[in-house]
Amino acid sequence: MENLIKSIESPEDLKKLRLEQLPQLCDELRKYIIESCSRNPGHLGASLGTIELTVAIHYVYDAPKDKIIWDVGHQAYAHKILTGRREAFLKNRCYNELSGFPKMDESPYDAFGTGHSSTSISAGLGYAIAASMRKSDDKVVAVIGDGSLTAGLAYEGMNNAGGTNADMLIILNDNKMSIEPNVGGLHNSLLKLTTSPRYNKLKLKAWRTLGSGAIRDAVQRFVRAGKRLVIRNSTLFQSLNIRYFGPVEGHDVIQLVKTLKRLKHLHGPRLLHVLTVKGKGYAPAENDQTTWHAPGLFDVETGLRLTGGDPGTPAKTRFQDVFGHTLLELAHSNPAIVGITPAMPTGCSLNIMMKEMPDRCFDVGIAEQHAVTFSAGLAAAGYLPYCNIYSSFMQRAYDSVIHDVAIQNLKVVFCLDRGGLVGEDGVTHHGAYDLAYFNCVPDMYVAAPMDEVELRNMLYSAQDKRYKTISIRYPRGTGSGIKDWRRPFTYMEPGKARLLNEGKDIALLSLGSAGLMGAAAVAKVAENGISVQHYDMRFLKPIDEDVLEHISRNYQNVITLEDGCLIGGLYSMVSVYMASHPGTISKVTGLGIPDRFIQHGKTKQLYHECGYDTESIVKAIETIAGKF
Amino acid sequence: MENLIKSIESPEDLKKLRLEQLPQLCDELRKYIIESCSRNPGHLGASLGTIELTVAIHYVYDAPKDKIIWDVGHQAYAHKILTGRREAFLKNRCYNELSGFPKMDESPYDAFGTGHSSTSISAGLGYAIAASMRKSDDKVVAVIGDGSLTAGLAYEGMNNAGGTNADMLIILNDNKMSIEPNVGGLHNSLLKLTTSPRYNKLKLKAWRTLGSGAIRDAVQRFVRAGKRLVIRNSTLFQSLNIRYFGPVEGHDVIQLVKTLKRLKHLHGPRLLHVLTVKGKGYAPAENDQTTWHAPGLFDVETGLRLTGGDPGTPAKTRFQDVFGHTLLELAHSNPAIVGITPAMPTGCSLNIMMKEMPDRCFDVGIAEQHAVTFSAGLAAAGYLPYCNIYSSFMQRAYDSVIHDVAIQNLKVVFCLDRGGLVGEDGVTHHGAYDLAYFNCVPDMYVAAPMDEVELRNMLYSAQDKRYKTISIRYPRGTGSGIKDWRRPFTYMEPGKARLLNEGKDIALLSLGSAGLMGAAAVAKVAENGISVQHYDMRFLKPIDEDVLEHISRNYQNVITLEDGCLIGGLYSMVSVYMASHPGTISKVTGLGIPDRFIQHGKTKQLYHECGYDTESIVKAIETIAGKF
Repeated sequence: MENLIKSIESPEDLKKLRLEQLPQLCDELRKYIIESCSRNPGHLGASLGTIELTVAIHYVYDAPKDKIIWDVGHQAYAHKILTGRREAFLKNRCYNELSGFPKMDESPYDAFGTGHSSTSISAGLGYAIAASMRKSDDKVVAVIGDGSLTAGLAYEGMNNAGGTNADMLIILNDNKMSIEPNVGGLHNSLLKLTTSPRYNKLKLKAWRTLGSGAIRDAVQRFVRAGKRLVIRNSTLFQSLNIRYFGPVEGHDVIQLVKTLKRLKHLHGPRLLHVLTVKGKGYAPAENDQTTWHAPGLFDVETGLRLTGGDPGTPAKTRFQDVFGHTLLELAHSNPAIVGITPAMPTGCSLNIMMKEMPDRCFDVGIAEQHAVTFSAGLAAAGYLPYCNIYSSFMQRAYDSVIHDVAIQNLKVVFCLDRGGLVGEDGVTHHGAYDLAYFNCVPDMYVAAPMDEVELRNMLYSAQDKRYKTISIRYPRGTGSGIKDWRRPFTYMEPGKARLLNEGKDIALLSLGSAGLMGAAAVAKVAENGISVQHYDMRFLKPIDEDVLEHISRNYQNVITLEDGCLIGGLYSMVSVYMASHPGTISKVTGLGIPDRFIQHGKTKQLYHECGYDTESIVKAIETIAGKF
Repeated sequence: MENLIKSIESPEDLKKLRLEQLPQLCDELRKYIIESCSRNPGHLGASLGTIELTVAIHYVYDAPKDKIIWDVGHQAYAHKILTGRREAFLKNRCYNELSGFPKMDESPYDAFGTGHSSTSISAGLGYAIAASMRKSDDKVVAVIGDGSLTAGLAYEGMNNAGGTNADMLIILNDNKMSIEPNVGGLHNSLLKLTTSPRYNKLKLKAWRTLGSGAIRDAVQRFVRAGKRLVIRNSTLFQSLNIRYFGPVEGHDVIQLVKTLKRLKHLHGPRLLHVLTVKGKGYAPAENDQTTWHAPGLFDVETGLRLTGGDPGTPAKTRFQDVFGHTLLELAHSNPAIVGITPAMPTGCSLNIMMKEMPDRCFDVGIAEQHAVTFSAGLAAAGYLPYCNIYSSFMQRAYDSVIHDVAIQNLKVVFCLDRGGLVGEDGVTHHGAYDLAYFNCVPDMYVAAPMDEVELRNMLYSAQDKRYKTISIRYPRGTGSGIKDWRRPFTYMEPGKARLLNEGKDIALLSLGSAGLMGAAAVAKVAENGISVQHYDMRFLKPIDEDVLEHISRNYQNVITLEDGCLIGGLYSMVSVYMASHPGTISKVTGLGIPDRFIQHGKTKQLYHECGYDTESIVKAIETIAGKF
């Protein structure tokens, strides 16, 4: 059998294939993605679900002239492979190699970069309106998952599109999942659409406008094949003035091509509902879709997952597990505690509490703004919400935190997972800004635990009345390796730092888990006779002014260290103190994320690039100690 | 005729009235609000539209036990008057007096504070879920306008509610307007709902579940009265699993009471669609709903609006008009320019360009996230979007700016209106944080013009290739009073400050229009022999390091001045420079918004409270000059 995949360097080559060859190409793509992901971890499940759809879109549309816009983008592996990146894909998500998401500066075929969810319709509408202003006939296809549809941005985009004549095809890639099973009212109604037994009452009005018998034949074939297919007038999309077509089977590439060819030449905003299966074609991934969303390394034959991404890493506890187990423990003794997550119960480990206390945990879907304002409502009603949101996703709920929580002096404990550099997910997922963007919000505390025990004690202490609404941020992955982190709780005074090491040459003020690298560096330079006064600051706000005063009078050289952007975080706050207090003798050097976007790679590589891995900290201390 | 309004100190008193007395009470409330707003400006139009609805809700529900949650909240004047604040309302929005919006710490009847749109459903769901966890029978009513429904947050809330059994009544207050006429696909479909001629095909299934003939009678009465009333299966709400009732006439208080009494005892998430008229009962306000949204002072008899809020203010040009006229001028010579606003064409003056170039301007509705991501799509397609969003509303689009614009290095000119303290709209509307929250975003410029001419030249210069994506922020209201601001354009180098005054005693670094108060203070202290080196910094990012270096070596005392939060803005950046550069002799004092929430009042009062009106700046200079 001919090896088709190797003949394709661009969508031009794809178009040379005969329609009947496409199923074989899909098989080859599937094998290629599974093989590659087994050796070089990635988002396997989503990309397996969209292979036929991707092939069909590129077969019918003319990218890069036509704009294909992915949502989230972790389902775009086939797209990358078909657009000249087949070989490069083998190093997907590696340092200085391909990004795991579409990226405008990586390829002209990536019409719009992604990473977070629910942006494709708005961006696509921009392209479509631009095309109409230019009177060009460039087409726009915006793909969006059913999970992404729960986010407000997708709705805002659809509502705006529905008020225009924009020539745009939205493809709803409906696999009943985001990363977790999808939730909410819309999910229920999509489910009705796809499972209604009334397919004999088909209203084919919409299909008839397609003008030919070909599609009707296709429909009849589906019906004969026992597929449940129904078109009703009561969809979300129609209420927003968007023409609805579907649902169609998403793994029949030939039918998809035929359907898209028809839809391509219609006008106005329209939506095709495509049913896909996450993990399609690889049994383990189909059977456990959440685990196999991003399975890490695995053995293709046996379907056995190999330990984590990094074989050889000792089995430390992840901050996520500390969060999950501790919250459950606290919830047992404090009946006011409730847990909220926007679609990440497994990722953030709220599922631990969820299992035991399903009535006190709320997965609200991909809907960060709502997660926060809903938490505010619960707080107003007397509950104490622990609302867990990834740092970079919290950017979407910034107004809700200010307007609905902080201004009203309501108490919500924001647990900011994925704070700091996250590694392979890269630029869109780094939690780089939260320290800065929360620091300026009044009536809010901002904290970052250095290790497992501190996270645990912060979660515990935040219940106390002396704590305001607080953001407790911690990184993706493992902590310091403290084995007995499940110690009895210790109350932590807000705004109090912890002295880790005494020294006279230099002061090191660290915030959060970057302090672990700081402590390692302090131990290392001690061997060379440099003694460092090292504080784990714990709180950016309120900041420990006693420590700052002491430092300002006794240390000429101060280094700040944080796994966050240098502008607006610890470095800024320490500098403000030093610059405004007379009698200060300190000069401040800041280690943290510099003022540029950091791409993907292993966190170690990225820390090094940013100059705050242990080695770089050692160098910084030695340089400064030598300089003065 | 009895004066009913004076007998009501709380909803308890309201409930003592007979149903037939309610229309009279509504008349009295209407007169009271019109009279009061004519002398003490406020949001007249929206509150006139909700009088009957407010009376009916409080007549049927038992606040504060039952939770009544308003959205935006400028329609809640009758609510304030009925809940013990009748006299206090006469000083609505004045310094240290009532807020113009519901506010939790103002009254137990204000179940959730508002100001921005689209929060009520999420907050209400929090209350409803809390009630169900407690097994209490407290009811929740969340009111939301049709304009607010275009925002993603409202949709996220509905989607989550539709996936629960939460006992919550959503009341859609549909006046076909937000501040501007409503736009988008949903608007079209709501319009169909309310104007369909098929009222003889009523599907009364939903109503029948009410279980009694009373409502059916009411419905028939409406139909007889020629009201168009239709219930269909194709609403947004039903697609989200929320039971839909209506539409009903919103100015028939007796019918509203009867309807609410029935709906109160149903269960699960449900929505009542109420048709109201913005400005109802006051002809000028009904006839020009946008102007009379917040008309300022007016003469009740003649309907004549009196000049602005502040009679006696000289006729200076508003920054908004400078923006509007300048953008049109630029768009004439640069065909790539397009204008985007989320529902504020009049407020931000994009309507000036809109009138002449309707095809190049886009009002996307209340949808800030979409406004930004849509702009990003237009930019990716080669256009140069000028996207105008109020500073405090931009908080809602923070992620879109980072993720869809800055990371992709797309060029959008963000025109941030309402930067700094805004006055009477108060705590939710102050543009306090934008300097800080944008300052930490890489690949972005942050600028603030001091006066009309600078705004004009920044808008002009931002087109240049040397400019990255930029936020140009300016305040609500008038500038310095430059008469001939329509001068030929001058290119402004990014990151270059302007020396306004030479002096040797102190350095004053100001950013934005606060510099006008700074300049006045500099002139004043000069009379006392204190000479101040005053720079208008123009750019927070890139910051003028040449100026900072010069200052750091020559001035012991530096004052920074900004109409924004002290944390994370100019004060921070100047401090970072001083704290990190050896050889610095400067100590820095920051004038700006302190780290607490500032309430409402005239901007002069608020500047004074925050310590950066002219008088306070004079005092600061004198104190510091005397101290050293």
